[in-house]
Amino acid sequence: MANLSDLPLRPELRGRSAYGAPQLTVTNQLNTNENPYPPSEGLVDDLVAAVRRLATTLNRYPERDAVELRTELASYVSRQTGVEVTVDQVWAANGSNEVLQQLLQAFGGPGRSVLGFTPSYSMHPILAAGTQTEFLDVPRTGGNFDIDVDNALAVIAEKTPDIVFVTTPNNPTGGITPLADLRRIIEAERAVGGIVIVDEAYAEFSDEPSATTLLADYPATLVVSRTMSKAFDFAGGRLGYFVADPAFIEAVMLVRLPYHLSTLSQAAATVALRHAEDTLATVALLRDERIRVVAALGDLGYKVVPSESNFVFFAVPSNVDAHDLWSRFLDLDVLIRDVGVPGHLRMTVGTPAENDAFLVAADKIIGEYS
Amino acid sequence: MANLSDLPLRPELRGRSAYGAPQLTVTNQLNTNENPYPPSEGLVDDLVAAVRRLATTLNRYPERDAVELRTELASYVSRQTGVEVTVDQVWAANGSNEVLQQLLQAFGGPGRSVLGFTPSYSMHPILAAGTQTEFLDVPRTGGNFDIDVDNALAVIAEKTPDIVFVTTPNNPTGGITPLADLRRIIEAERAVGGIVIVDEAYAEFSDEPSATTLLADYPATLVVSRTMSKAFDFAGGRLGYFVADPAFIEAVMLVRLPYHLSTLSQAAATVALRHAEDTLATVALLRDERIRVVAALGDLGYKVVPSESNFVFFAVPSNVDAHDLWSRFLDLDVLIRDVGVPGHLRMTVGTPAENDAFLVAADKIIGEYS
Repeated sequence: MANLSDLPLRPELRGRSAYGAPQLTVTNQLNTNENPYPPSEGLVDDLVAAVRRLATTLNRYPERDAVELRTELASYVSRQTGVEVTVDQVWAANGSNEVLQQLLQAFGGPGRSVLGFTPSYSMHPILAAGTQTEFLDVPRTGGNFDIDVDNALAVIAEKTPDIVFVTTPNNPTGGITPLADLRRIIEAERAVGGIVIVDEAYAEFSDEPSATTLLADYPATLVVSRTMSKAFDFAGGRLGYFVADPAFIEAVMLVRLPYHLSTLSQAAATVALRHAEDTLATVALLRDERIRVVAALGDLGYKVVPSESNFVFFAVPSNVDAHDLWSRFLDLDVLIRDVGVPGHLRMTVGTPAENDAFLVAADKIIGEYS
Repeated sequence: MANLSDLPLRPELRGRSAYGAPQLTVTNQLNTNENPYPPSEGLVDDLVAAVRRLATTLNRYPERDAVELRTELASYVSRQTGVEVTVDQVWAANGSNEVLQQLLQAFGGPGRSVLGFTPSYSMHPILAAGTQTEFLDVPRTGGNFDIDVDNALAVIAEKTPDIVFVTTPNNPTGGITPLADLRRIIEAERAVGGIVIVDEAYAEFSDEPSATTLLADYPATLVVSRTMSKAFDFAGGRLGYFVADPAFIEAVMLVRLPYHLSTLSQAAATVALRHAEDTLATVALLRDERIRVVAALGDLGYKVVPSESNFVFFAVPSNVDAHDLWSRFLDLDVLIRDVGVPGHLRMTVGTPAENDAFLVAADKIIGEYS
């Protein structure tokens, strides 16, 4: 037997611990921003039929460039964003984590840097570290954790990052970066010769137009990454994608692992996209529930950050440790997320019953601390 | 529209082209070392049932550490190699490419080096480049492309690589590195503080004992990587794994992308492993066919490298360009592989009918050139 300390691990990994929210079994699982509604019966039937048809080909490697799936994604993005995109503008991988890792391998890496506005998706700095890209951290100092755009432009001009991440709606805080602000950030980054990755994992929950509307203006600068894990109800299928000029797809093809998407992953995502109308019907329910939770949580006395996503970020009472409060929710069979932002917790909007359970717990807990 | 040259791609990627064998549709597809036999009916039925059961959970993220799948892999490795291994000694990812990439991220990277004995699996240097690890190339100068072990030990002592790759049976040449030679290489690498990754993608086709038999002796040095893409008949499912001391699993958990294996990938591979006996029955057929093809190809006048795998590496007539010969086979509806080794081509052992088609073509072609 060996210990981790016996192995010649890279020095910067020593003492680190593995990423990941606790995977606990509780009644009300409101911690990872999943869509709580299971896939429709029609989707399940079509998926089972596709698997039966393809299972006898599993001895063969998958179609390497996932053309059928990317065509279906292009059609979905065109409908959902109103911007006509084609198969050669779309790239897919095993979750947006892999999509972002491929972009960092191609455009980041040793001697290069990526700038992010924090708090944001906690995988961005981890993916930067995994690809040896320096992470430049610019705090969100606007109200409600918004980006201070004047400050952002000054930092971009000074630090000349190779890549800028903008998450909108932002995870874990929930607000959006308006299109006009995005345009200013993209122009500043274009001026220093870098690229901007707009991470739209939660786009379907917001009324703001997608950043894909800016692609025609900034073809050599803008990449819009998206996922089927959130609105799309397909976290278990692991399918992330990006939309950009075809030159970006050529670029990631130089670093992607060959046959990275299995036959089953391609087929399942294709089937899910063909049932987009069923799936996205649940998004309207979740938006209504979000509005209800935000209002009710405010009425209970919590300070809540406005949200255009499927989660709610709120402040804990000032005399309370956020992690203690997280544990109290867990005691009451409600699993939410402590993302490590002092004084704040994040809850995922679930079904009405799950949200009621959360609100009952929130009411009880604030009573205990007042 | 942008061109690739307009984008701020990393300089070392400029001018490169994407990896991959041509994906052509021909009658006799003998180019990517797949198992030609489709999965059994029992496997297909169980897979369809598993997908129906799990499809309604696809809105949730997969089990992050794939414990059920890794348990099944441990059981299979224990049976197949005769070395008892447990779940905490096995790690799985989307193909052995991802497994190897994770190991390079943890133990290679900038300022570190990996040594390989070439010609070998062509992804090894590509994965090294993708993780910024220097690739040290030691040619196989023994007969039949074997490793010259004395030379290997001298190079290891001189260059002190952080990682050594040994592919056995070796792809594309087909021969094995005997266990006694492996032991000498591992001891030399241990002496310089590095690790050895034995790539056993084709192990099931060989009579040589698995390198897993050496794990107990070299717990902090040896990793054995394997795949379900070859003998296991599951190239479309994309499932690679490695077997090593539990400390190596702890190490890759620091660099793996969270939720890297989808719910469907985990379930499908688990089902396939439960049907291992059906699947591996085809391995015996393929070994018999390999013996037949090697003998027949030799009788036709081709020089053939002895093989313990499911492919055959052979020399083309000395007055002929290998790529021209590859094209002649394709004209005759037989797709084999030009792996870029001068004067040589590789054919995958297929069904008896496919092998007959290959041999008929090989006979016709050698007649044209003599």
